[in-house]
Amino acid sequence: MCKVKAVVMDKVNGEIKVEIREFPEPTLEEGAVLLKTIFSEVCGTDVHLFHGQLAEAPYPIIPGHVNVGKIENINGCVLDVEGNPFKVGDVVTFLDAHETCNKCWYCLVAKATTRCPHRKVYGITYSANDGLLGGWSQLIYLKPGVKIIKLPQHLRPIDFIAGGCGAPIALHAVESATIEFGDTVVVQGSGPVGLNVAIFAILKGAGEVIVIDPCKNKNRLEMAQQIGADHTIGDSTPEGRIGKVLKLTCNRGADVTIEASGNPKAVTEGMEMTRDNGTYVIVGQYTDAGDVYINPHRQINKKLLNIRGVWGIDYNHLYETIRLMAKHKDRFCWGQFISQIYSLDETETALNDVEELHVIKAVIAPNEDLCKT
Amino acid sequence: MCKVKAVVMDKVNGEIKVEIREFPEPTLEEGAVLLKTIFSEVCGTDVHLFHGQLAEAPYPIIPGHVNVGKIENINGCVLDVEGNPFKVGDVVTFLDAHETCNKCWYCLVAKATTRCPHRKVYGITYSANDGLLGGWSQLIYLKPGVKIIKLPQHLRPIDFIAGGCGAPIALHAVESATIEFGDTVVVQGSGPVGLNVAIFAILKGAGEVIVIDPCKNKNRLEMAQQIGADHTIGDSTPEGRIGKVLKLTCNRGADVTIEASGNPKAVTEGMEMTRDNGTYVIVGQYTDAGDVYINPHRQINKKLLNIRGVWGIDYNHLYETIRLMAKHKDRFCWGQFISQIYSLDETETALNDVEELHVIKAVIAPNEDLCKT
Amino acid sequence: MCKVKAVVMDKVNGEIKVEIREFPEPTLEEGAVLLKTIFSEVCGTDVHLFHGQLAEAPYPIIPGHVNVGKIENINGCVLDVEGNPFKVGDVVTFLDAHETCNKCWYCLVAKATTRCPHRKVYGITYSANDGLLGGWSQLIYLKPGVKIIKLPQHLRPIDFIAGGCGAPIALHAVESATIEFGDTVVVQGSGPVGLNVAIFAILKGAGEVIVIDPCKNKNRLEMAQQIGADHTIGDSTPEGRIGKVLKLTCNRGADVTIEASGNPKAVTEGMEMTRDNGTYVIVGQYTDAGDVYINPHRQINKKLLNIRGVWGIDYNHLYETIRLMAKHKDRFCWGQFISQIYSLDETETALNDVEELHVIKAVIAPNEDLCKT
Amino acid sequence: MCKVKAVVMDKVNGEIKVEIREFPEPTLEEGAVLLKTIFSEVCGTDVHLFHGQLAEAPYPIIPGHVNVGKIENINGCVLDVEGNPFKVGDVVTFLDAHETCNKCWYCLVAKATTRCPHRKVYGITYSANDGLLGGWSQLIYLKPGVKIIKLPQHLRPIDFIAGGCGAPIALHAVESATIEFGDTVVVQGSGPVGLNVAIFAILKGAGEVIVIDPCKNKNRLEMAQQIGADHTIGDSTPEGRIGKVLKLTCNRGADVTIEASGNPKAVTEGMEMTRDNGTYVIVGQYTDAGDVYINPHRQINKKLLNIRGVWGIDYNHLYETIRLMAKHKDRFCWGQFISQIYSLDETETALNDVEELHVIKAVIAPNEDLCKT
Repeated sequence: MCKVKAVVMDKVNGEIKVEIREFPEPTLEEGAVLLKTIFSEVCGTDVHLFHGQLAEAPYPIIPGHVNVGKIENINGCVLDVEGNPFKVGDVVTFLDAHETCNKCWYCLVAKATTRCPHRKVYGITYSANDGLLGGWSQLIYLKPGVKIIKLPQHLRPIDFIAGGCGAPIALHAVESATIEFGDTVVVQGSGPVGLNVAIFAILKGAGEVIVIDPCKNKNRLEMAQQIGADHTIGDSTPEGRIGKVLKLTCNRGADVTIEASGNPKAVTEGMEMTRDNGTYVIVGQYTDAGDVYINPHRQINKKLLNIRGVWGIDYNHLYETIRLMAKHKDRFCWGQFISQIYSLDETETALNDVEELHVIKAVIAPNEDLCKT
Repeated sequence: MCKVKAVVMDKVNGEIKVEIREFPEPTLEEGAVLLKTIFSEVCGTDVHLFHGQLAEAPYPIIPGHVNVGKIENINGCVLDVEGNPFKVGDVVTFLDAHETCNKCWYCLVAKATTRCPHRKVYGITYSANDGLLGGWSQLIYLKPGVKIIKLPQHLRPIDFIAGGCGAPIALHAVESATIEFGDTVVVQGSGPVGLNVAIFAILKGAGEVIVIDPCKNKNRLEMAQQIGADHTIGDSTPEGRIGKVLKLTCNRGADVTIEASGNPKAVTEGMEMTRDNGTYVIVGQYTDAGDVYINPHRQINKKLLNIRGVWGIDYNHLYETIRLMAKHKDRFCWGQFISQIYSLDETETALNDVEELHVIKAVIAPNEDLCKT
Repeated sequence: MCKVKAVVMDKVNGEIKVEIREFPEPTLEEGAVLLKTIFSEVCGTDVHLFHGQLAEAPYPIIPGHVNVGKIENINGCVLDVEGNPFKVGDVVTFLDAHETCNKCWYCLVAKATTRCPHRKVYGITYSANDGLLGGWSQLIYLKPGVKIIKLPQHLRPIDFIAGGCGAPIALHAVESATIEFGDTVVVQGSGPVGLNVAIFAILKGAGEVIVIDPCKNKNRLEMAQQIGADHTIGDSTPEGRIGKVLKLTCNRGADVTIEASGNPKAVTEGMEMTRDNGTYVIVGQYTDAGDVYINPHRQINKKLLNIRGVWGIDYNHLYETIRLMAKHKDRFCWGQFISQIYSLDETETALNDVEELHVIKAVIAPNEDLCKT
Repeated sequence: MCKVKAVVMDKVNGEIKVEIREFPEPTLEEGAVLLKTIFSEVCGTDVHLFHGQLAEAPYPIIPGHVNVGKIENINGCVLDVEGNPFKVGDVVTFLDAHETCNKCWYCLVAKATTRCPHRKVYGITYSANDGLLGGWSQLIYLKPGVKIIKLPQHLRPIDFIAGGCGAPIALHAVESATIEFGDTVVVQGSGPVGLNVAIFAILKGAGEVIVIDPCKNKNRLEMAQQIGADHTIGDSTPEGRIGKVLKLTCNRGADVTIEASGNPKAVTEGMEMTRDNGTYVIVGQYTDAGDVYINPHRQINKKLLNIRGVWGIDYNHLYETIRLMAKHKDRFCWGQFISQIYSLDETETALNDVEELHVIKAVIAPNEDLCKT
């Protein structure tokens, strides 16, 4: 391969354009790995990038933060966490976040690694000028130290990418929720994050899982039922939705509510849906979509509510996600989240389909020959 | 004693009046205890009662929820948690919350006893029609099962009442905050709750304690310094206060912020003052003082903020408070919080002094002869 | 019904005898409930009672602590935790532990209710002289305040009793283990407790569950596989068993090990099987079967091991167990644990079958007409 | 300085010898820092090294793992966790553990960094052949990436070194103990670790702290009282010691017991001293001093005991320790733990004095001119 095709989002005269560009095949520094991309996902963040809604995004960008590929080349010996060396031909994914420094106050004292200020993210905060550092490309350059994980043999790339970035962030959110046996868990939102939250809540021993989608997106609520949600709620008004949750919970509200909607108004509603001394996890507010009113006396103080914000993932979340996806792939059939696979030429359509909610999960396959892997 | 004098707040034609009434000395049912009141406190809740701001308050009410008294009479054998019988003459206090049922879903499944719907509170949710069930009275009737605690011999009644209801609720808030060694703790508010929060944060191993009082209430900020706060902030603008906290925390914000102000606007401000992945405890929003805007993306989600509402206390909070007050009475000198002791005739003045912040802590002494105990 | 038949274990001249005795039908005090027994279980504790291995057992005893029955009579209005009244004909179970006082130091300060010194247990620490307070009887007398739970309509009594006391204690143990997503969990022992521990570990999101039975009790290990254990180990030597666990865990040991064997030697072995900084829960040492050697340096200190002893259950464990059994009854088929149902005449055979491990779970059906419920 | 004097422990014909050797002044690689030693400590581990009791110790070794020094030279720009550059002349300490990899399963998945297999420790697991990697030397070579902390201006080197390695390990142990307000904490052992455990337990809000020293080492028990222990116990028999603890705790035992004795027999005794559902932390079993009998039924299971092994420290423990030592240096006067300061020529005497318990803390001052810093 002489030239590498990659999709680049660039900002020209204040407008963002998506186009295919060609890059030279990179030379690997010591410890680097070259990946031939099998699949990359399209997620809401990519739509935000496309609309210029992420402050400080370093255009031009090659999007695609969660990816799976085949190792094309390795410079030197690169080991996984167990100490086993990677080999050319291995099918792997990697943690999109890189350069977490392990030297700063957040890494060493607070141990809040997702808030390390040095952290960079493939496909989001790296520029195309710095290399093939996003997945909408035939090749991905994995810098030395990028945390790579081999997919278990029986977890197909298509199943893994169907979970996409939604699966590990959902796992992170559910871990933060400290669900107790038998808890009733409400999930606000039935997009890729919401559906994965429902899956991991089920896996964590919830008594009942209720998925809410106010958009009456029937496909998604049906999908929620298919993966095992006990109830779905599609009411168009907050009162209607809150009322249904109360009815299903002896008028107390959910033990745990997890917001995965992206809509700030969901937050007030979620507090109302949660029982006294319950837990409310907010994971869906990835971009700033505005302020919202809350009543601290009634909704937090008197309610003894526990609220937790969840942002980003770390290596362990990805590692555990893969372990559980491999184990439960037949039970939850992540693959069915994928409505369509797009080539590099079709990324603008893919972005549009994600934005219009025509699909649950859109996937890019940059190399036609690997598409059936 | 034939007639018992007690202060009653009554609602007449929609207006609340405070007056002394006389009650017959009560007959004790089996397991009941009669207390001769030494001190009762006046707290913000009493001011709310006085202004009719507590929904469902069952006027007429004898106020006074935290009290200390001498046992005048016991019907039968009443034991403390260690199994020791109380005796006439013992100087005791008791948990104001009573009738927590230990039978309902909140008591047995959620173990959130402060949310038990059967719970009643002396001086707040009991009516004067039901008996001498508040502390602004020469005698207090302790129903069978009320949880009584003997004061340790070297903890004077005046020191205990100076902590008042602020001390155990502050202990509850600080316990919920899970302060780590060396944490910087910001306390919003320097009233009785805020000052006690500062004390318990110090006792829990905080690295630095910062007390904020935007009212420039110098007395209180000086008191905060006296009990060991490392810094006080009296700025009149949110920007000024937030800026000072950032300056004191390498621009990160506090590890833990505890709201004890009662002002809903403090909540947004408190979120801004807390560092990424820090903890924010809201304990001061005892009454509904309105809504407030928050930005869930920036202030909770991306920040990985942990928020906890704290409401009411349980027996263990009172028990632990007394243990620690007895141990540290000379270090923190709770007694100095008391600006003035009022007789039953002076309760309206006391209410006014509390409302106008003329005093930190106001105390009622219903029996002149016990006032020097 | 005029006379009530019940099995009584009595101690005569130092020997324990089992016989059927007749009791008058009891009169109900206010708040009491009379249960017509559908099923009672036979568990290891009953074998210990039979052999006089429980210190301070108040013979004569009517055994049977976990039971399910039909309400025959109620004196007054008795409510469940939701506030709904029980009715004659309801199929219910109840928490065997009663008289937990909610007044002592362990109840109120430590909140360690299973260590309340006033607690009594149906079928174990109540004497037959005090009434029909065990389940190997046609009728069970539920004292006022006994915590009763209605079985959900689709949870059959036979399925519930098949879980028996093993299910809630297993739930308690698994909750204490704080299993993280993807953890490898080893269960030592494949009796009723061990099998239920495996089930709840699966329900809690374990990555792999490994069940060990050194007795090569094939039936039980097959049952373990049937309910979803990923691996079973039947080696006869500690070295063999430890070696197999290490092999399955990249030589690190299990993230979580839960002892449910009753053999003290399992404790040293379990420590060796658990990884550094892992968690070891000890739930199976119900009676004193002797001391065991450990090496605190190597097995606890340097290993940063977390060890938790688990004893008894509380209402919430039973409540959550029933909720989860109803939800997952078709997945785990508790009913298959029951090898045989015995009449009151056959309890000695049942005790023998349990002791000889001929059965996984033995069940007593005191009333022939209710046996098919 | 041309030649650097350092004490070396070497193994010659199976015997360990201590001697001063001279090394050339090292050249600094990029990112390395050279420290002129002010103080190094002598701790029990050094005695173990001296007696060859640490398996796999890479003799010859320059002992001295906790150190404080003045920066003599820096190659390049080296930053602290806040991002501030170190300067020549700064008085600093550093985390003795180095090369924790942040790449292996223990670092990334278990987040149990003290169990990272790549970790090396200055003065213990580095050989003198690898450089000046221990503190009993005039100069210490800090490899690139070693985690350095500047001492706060008002924390004198002598006060810091008096805490030594005992202070951060004690902080780690107390953090693991999750002490609740008012808890009674028993500390087994009154050596440098035990005394620091007592200090941090006091700082964490313990109700009462009881220090036990069965050796009747009066000096140490007096020191315990001086730093604020509420009670000390010097009984020579286990029964006597257990009896005293029970007497001080209403016959229940301590809420939290922390073992800091090094004697395996203390473990059984500590379990007996701890109340039901209490917490037992084992931190003192640094070397293998043999096995011990425990009764899992009575001492763990029925007791619902929580046991935690604590090993080593991480950066945050050192960071927090320094913050708290600076704050509380006048309250606890760590400096008084130091009985004597030894020169490099006197290290064998120092080792002997530590072993014979003639001193609480022995300190080496390799550079006479810095001794008064």
